[in-house]
Amino acid sequence: MHVHHVGRHSDFAAAKMAKNNLFESERMFCDVYCLEPGQAQRVHAHAASDKVYYVIEGAPTFEVDGERQSLGPGNAVWAPAGSDHGVANESGDRARLLVVMAPRP
Amino acid sequence: MHVHHVGRHSDFAAAKMAKNNLFESERMFCDVYCLEPGQAQRVHAHAASDKVYYVIEGAPTFEVDGERQSLGPGNAVWAPAGSDHGVANESGDRARLLVVMAPRP
Repeated sequence: MHVHHVGRHSDFAAAKMAKNNLFESERMFCDVYCLEPGQAQRVHAHAASDKVYYVIEGAPTFEVDGERQSLGPGNAVWAPAGSDHGVANESGDRARLLVVMAPRP
Repeated sequence: MHVHHVGRHSDFAAAKMAKNNLFESERMFCDVYCLEPGQAQRVHAHAASDKVYYVIEGAPTFEVDGERQSLGPGNAVWAPAGSDHGVANESGDRARLLVVMAPRP
């Protein structure tokens, strides 16, 4: 059985936001994004893939189609295909997110 | 922005495991499964869709292709297309899972 514990499979990087892949196929990928304070994934779009962000730790700030919200653990955000979306850690604490995108672009 | 807080969007049901949908498109769905003690999703397979389970609360028992593991919060399980998979709450406490499947079958 393919199992990953997120706490043991999510590394941070000083240089930029770290993406830790858990599972992947042509149909989807599942990553853990780790953001040190000040790190971000710039706003971008995927024409034909949906993304879900789930906050595990911290209070990152999401942007989807120009709307911004800072959200704590337990919140899930929907970034549908074609939407301009990104996430920035503007807090003083680390942030970790479970991220699923389908299909893999 | 489409946001759901999992703790405010996950109901349990006495009759059977409850599926609470957060987001859905033809490319994926994202649900919260809520299992009272003794409830289960029977083992089944999807020929062309992958599933990821992420444990939010509790210690449910997963089965994938005949292998079984009980896993606590922070664990993610991969049930790829074609695999025989299911989950049972054999513990005495409630279990909640974030579940993503792609594509939606």
